[in-house]
Amino acid sequence: MKLGELTERLFIEGVLRNYLGKRPPFSRLGFPDDAVDFLPLAPRIVVSVDASSIASVKLPWRSLGDAAWAIATGAVSDHIAKGSRPAYALVSLGLSPDLDLSEAKAIVRGLSEAFNYYGVSWVGGDTNSSRDPWISVTMIGFTTAKRPPPRSGARPGDAVVVTGRYGAMGYVALRGVEEASRTTWVVEKTRRPLVDVRVGTVIALNYKSIHASMDVSDGLGFTIMEISRLSGVGFRVEKPPLVFKEVYELCEGRLQCLYELSLNGGEEYGVVMTVSKEGLGNVVEDLESYGVEYEVIGEVVEGSGLKLEGVNKVAIYGWDQFGGYVKSA
Amino acid sequence: MKLGELTERLFIEGVLRNYLGKRPPFSRLGFPDDAVDFLPLAPRIVVSVDASSIASVKLPWRSLGDAAWAIATGAVSDHIAKGSRPAYALVSLGLSPDLDLSEAKAIVRGLSEAFNYYGVSWVGGDTNSSRDPWISVTMIGFTTAKRPPPRSGARPGDAVVVTGRYGAMGYVALRGVEEASRTTWVVEKTRRPLVDVRVGTVIALNYKSIHASMDVSDGLGFTIMEISRLSGVGFRVEKPPLVFKEVYELCEGRLQCLYELSLNGGEEYGVVMTVSKEGLGNVVEDLESYGVEYEVIGEVVEGSGLKLEGVNKVAIYGWDQFGGYVKSA
Repeated sequence: MKLGELTERLFIEGVLRNYLGKRPPFSRLGFPDDAVDFLPLAPRIVVSVDASSIASVKLPWRSLGDAAWAIATGAVSDHIAKGSRPAYALVSLGLSPDLDLSEAKAIVRGLSEAFNYYGVSWVGGDTNSSRDPWISVTMIGFTTAKRPPPRSGARPGDAVVVTGRYGAMGYVALRGVEEASRTTWVVEKTRRPLVDVRVGTVIALNYKSIHASMDVSDGLGFTIMEISRLSGVGFRVEKPPLVFKEVYELCEGRLQCLYELSLNGGEEYGVVMTVSKEGLGNVVEDLESYGVEYEVIGEVVEGSGLKLEGVNKVAIYGWDQFGGYVKSA
Repeated sequence: MKLGELTERLFIEGVLRNYLGKRPPFSRLGFPDDAVDFLPLAPRIVVSVDASSIASVKLPWRSLGDAAWAIATGAVSDHIAKGSRPAYALVSLGLSPDLDLSEAKAIVRGLSEAFNYYGVSWVGGDTNSSRDPWISVTMIGFTTAKRPPPRSGARPGDAVVVTGRYGAMGYVALRGVEEASRTTWVVEKTRRPLVDVRVGTVIALNYKSIHASMDVSDGLGFTIMEISRLSGVGFRVEKPPLVFKEVYELCEGRLQCLYELSLNGGEEYGVVMTVSKEGLGNVVEDLESYGVEYEVIGEVVEGSGLKLEGVNKVAIYGWDQFGGYVKSA
């Protein structure tokens, strides 16, 4: 059955509403109202919106549910990098009337599985007709941090801390989708990207010493270049971030190879943060105590751009929604 | 120049950022961060998301800017009906790389003009590539009301108050887009729909006596049927809402004609509220003191559905995103 035959109303009432979470405490509005209401769970409210056409995240080995999961994860990631605990999601969906109900259900289920995994309650949204299906996730979070770290706050002397493991999406970007689809570990690591929400807690606890922070949604190299550009500083990188063990094997220890695979990619959803020298000890202690995967890869310096120690220049590409892959360094 | 040639980055930095408003007070994040942060402006926070493909609101006499205005107005309207003052907007845009920069600018300008008109600050968002361009507006508002009125709270005995003027979009729905495009007053009244934000203040002030409230985005008849269905009550309507003077002339006073044109349509963005008998005097006094256009059209009764006094049955259609126009009564 196609959505056009089912009608929007029956899709909302028969499918979507089953995935909606409980209303926030003391809330009075919710499904099927056009808006949701809540009282703040922490002094500062953080809101983001992160959207994508489904086609653009639909790697061949991702099901529609996997693609939806990836989009929901991207929305969570924006909060983590700012020290915010994501709490409530509103989802705006553009689906084609020609879409099979089973496919629409797979999309909704993928979103719901991701929200459940991250402890986010899906509280509302909007459905629309679109010939090029898309998902826009509005995420509402809360933070106790008085100053959530922006992209633009890096200062010379800061240590550069990178959370997460890299190299799988770099493999896709550099070797192509064809070869990646035959490489089991790449498929496994990229099917449903994950965010470590504990990183957000560490950032909220250490906001005074974390001068800049940005999530790695468009590639680690691109992320570093963005912080560099917006902060008016340079980055000296002395070692690669953590990579998957298959990347170590593949690179046979060659630094150039490790940088190429870890700096390119996207959707890794680790965080790049720059931390004052005085604050680094506490940040590292907190990351360790939560068991977060991280590496201190270098430091912020005067100047601009990214200098990699011990290797030739590594080309870095970023994804541009209108222009496709563009070189950023 | 096409967006694909310009790149997303230059579109954001060269065009979009010029339309962003000031950061909220005490905010630390904002353009170009992925999230915005703010402190609450009133005890209760209200968030909605309202999206649309541009094609679906692009009446032939609407420019792209008018279409964008209409979508922004729809997002404001959801707040007004809940007694919320809309304050901050995040806009998720899906635009085609083939779109001319001038057209993209017209869309952004239309959104910005609407937000300025309603006193909303455009604080962030997301840009995406889409072959079927769309706009999703996340609106954040605040209310002092302890219980914002839901769709589902109508009680027998309540008076039915309808704000706004009707008939122009009914003309489009019943006579068709062709004839409407040759009818000057219809074109003028529907090009850029307007919401009266003072209605939201009246609702916040009178939340104790306003049992149900819903904005008229999909037609007045459909709105009444929705409140009826969700509240488990019926509506007895004794007179039509306010209509444009051209509708009175057109109908030559015939009640059937007045109901047909006022109950069908959409995007009128008035509000239907049901008000306790005891509270009606205060609500009317507040609406009068603000100069809001309204009519008390009838009352809520036991039972279900919509009974129009003095006329035969009037067919009511609602817009279904997947199914198109569907009959709701």
